[in-house]
Amino acid sequence: MIHSLLRPDLLALPGYVPGEQPRAGEAVKLNTNENPYRASDKVYEAIKAAADRGLSRYPNAMAQPFREAAAEVYGVSPEMILCGNGSDDLLTILTRSFLDRGQWLRLAKPSYILYKTLALLQGGHADEVRFLPDWTLPESFGQGFDDGRQLKLVYLPNPNSPSGTVLSKETILRFAETLPCPIVVDEAYADFAEENCIDLVKKNAKIMVLRTLSKSYALAGLRFGFLFADPAIIEQLAKMKDSYNCDAIAIAAATAAVRDQDWRQANRAKILATRRRLTERMRQLGFTVPESHANFTWNVHPDAGVSHKEIYLYLKERGWLVRYMDYGQCGDGLRISVGTDEQNDAMLDCLEKYFKK
Amino acid sequence: MIHSLLRPDLLALPGYVPGEQPRAGEAVKLNTNENPYRASDKVYEAIKAAADRGLSRYPNAMAQPFREAAAEVYGVSPEMILCGNGSDDLLTILTRSFLDRGQWLRLAKPSYILYKTLALLQGGHADEVRFLPDWTLPESFGQGFDDGRQLKLVYLPNPNSPSGTVLSKETILRFAETLPCPIVVDEAYADFAEENCIDLVKKNAKIMVLRTLSKSYALAGLRFGFLFADPAIIEQLAKMKDSYNCDAIAIAAATAAVRDQDWRQANRAKILATRRRLTERMRQLGFTVPESHANFTWNVHPDAGVSHKEIYLYLKERGWLVRYMDYGQCGDGLRISVGTDEQNDAMLDCLEKYFKK
Repeated sequence: MIHSLLRPDLLALPGYVPGEQPRAGEAVKLNTNENPYRASDKVYEAIKAAADRGLSRYPNAMAQPFREAAAEVYGVSPEMILCGNGSDDLLTILTRSFLDRGQWLRLAKPSYILYKTLALLQGGHADEVRFLPDWTLPESFGQGFDDGRQLKLVYLPNPNSPSGTVLSKETILRFAETLPCPIVVDEAYADFAEENCIDLVKKNAKIMVLRTLSKSYALAGLRFGFLFADPAIIEQLAKMKDSYNCDAIAIAAATAAVRDQDWRQANRAKILATRRRLTERMRQLGFTVPESHANFTWNVHPDAGVSHKEIYLYLKERGWLVRYMDYGQCGDGLRISVGTDEQNDAMLDCLEKYFKK
Repeated sequence: MIHSLLRPDLLALPGYVPGEQPRAGEAVKLNTNENPYRASDKVYEAIKAAADRGLSRYPNAMAQPFREAAAEVYGVSPEMILCGNGSDDLLTILTRSFLDRGQWLRLAKPSYILYKTLALLQGGHADEVRFLPDWTLPESFGQGFDDGRQLKLVYLPNPNSPSGTVLSKETILRFAETLPCPIVVDEAYADFAEENCIDLVKKNAKIMVLRTLSKSYALAGLRFGFLFADPAIIEQLAKMKDSYNCDAIAIAAATAAVRDQDWRQANRAKILATRRRLTERMRQLGFTVPESHANFTWNVHPDAGVSHKEIYLYLKERGWLVRYMDYGQCGDGLRISVGTDEQNDAMLDCLEKYFKK
């Protein structure tokens, strides 16, 4: 068989299953934490201007216009920023740059399933540390192994998915101080929280902060992510990335997006208001909902007679797609994205009928 | 030092040096084989339509609309096609999927320098096989090692850069039949040649064919590449790629591009006519120029008193940027992209003055 020529690490991974992508109009998508609003008009104007300039030439290899704009907005130097084709591109670059065969990558569980996959593709191992019942992490998360295993990289999503909960900056700084390796704080949802870790990067070079335009800038279709790190690290990571990993249109659009902080703040206010409504109504329906700092809520019904999977299927049949998550020993639940008020309210009305039947 | 936490393979690589990118208007770029013409209007219309549909949602994970369009155009099934964020993305995916630490990747020399870099980043080795003086390869290129070394992947650019020369399909099929591993035919420039290897993929599953929209579709700024391979291989490679490696705008633009074969044929005719003029005038100036099957020519002056580097600098000072290539033992020369007639003629007029001075 031809595919026996491939690496065993790859063959051992389970088959590729793309996420549920209903055709436009078939369902209301509340399952992948996309932003329900249209990005800033300035972004779409920048895309059309970039197209008018033409695409015959290679783009800027380091996405320099974005680096300069983001450096201003976030109060860092451009040399502290690396751009990627989505934050997944940067997670791939990071894993390949720090982790070698037989070494260990640590991650919090339950969180983004890609972290473990990336470790396995490198021929490495994943040390999965479970969140405590209050969604904090044990202090051991910030410590190396004492049995000879080599810990080379730590991924910490903050706010976390699916819980929407956050760890404090003090906790993360303390982890970094005791860890033998870098810790990447994946801040995909940080724009919906009250604080973030960008200023910690200057305090401790072991801290890196990862961002995306997919959620808070409403640009999941654009594929653009960026990393804050010590310039000495950025310089090395740039050798690992594809030469032209961000295209000319994405660079122009991302630059316009990050320059329009008024749009982002106004969008954030809308998302947070809808998140409050969603949280309150889910709690009224009897769900346990941790206070969310992201653009989704994590909903677990404490009644053993209530099946999360059945609810997921009930909603799906009626046109609302939410995310059913089954983490095995860590339990299961429903992750529901914050859409517009109208989308969430209609889904909740449907869910109320489920409980009244 | 913080960067000592990175993988030694990465630290050992030379520093990242982006290609020469003069600002718009500062120089005529004849150094990176970009297409001098603007892509089909249909491509730019598709970009604007995709922007109007909005970018809040994640794109299609497999770039399915492009796969279906390209399958029609090239006479294969969609399952034989994998799309990438430029062909560099696919080269990275291929190298990571087939090559493990300590194993060997074979490449022809001189050719695309990225191949070797990718092998080293995997902790692998590069077996660099030199072209013969007539730009063919020794028969040993198609044979495994007999000393226990594990050959896991072969890269063969066809047409080759910098030479612009081609190997016949018969030769490539013969290589595949005797090799113990897959051979990737990198056809970045094949649209400017007389034949290509796409139909060989069905004849021998060890043959894969890599394409890009950067050259013959005038879309270097878009970042879009695609691979033809056996469906069983594509299925595995899809597990290695980032989930959403092609953005929504690139998918729409690429689909429009591949559907407009009239544009591509007309563009090809213009490039080939200019290539003929360029080749003839360079030969008149005394250069040895192999017959090119790409959108550039390789120019070596046989007179030991002529310095290729000096010519490169002379042209650069006067506003023409060509590519000076120094391959050490394999010699040096000038690689000149096919621009418009006007661009190439003006460069040649300048070069004539150099030889008359």
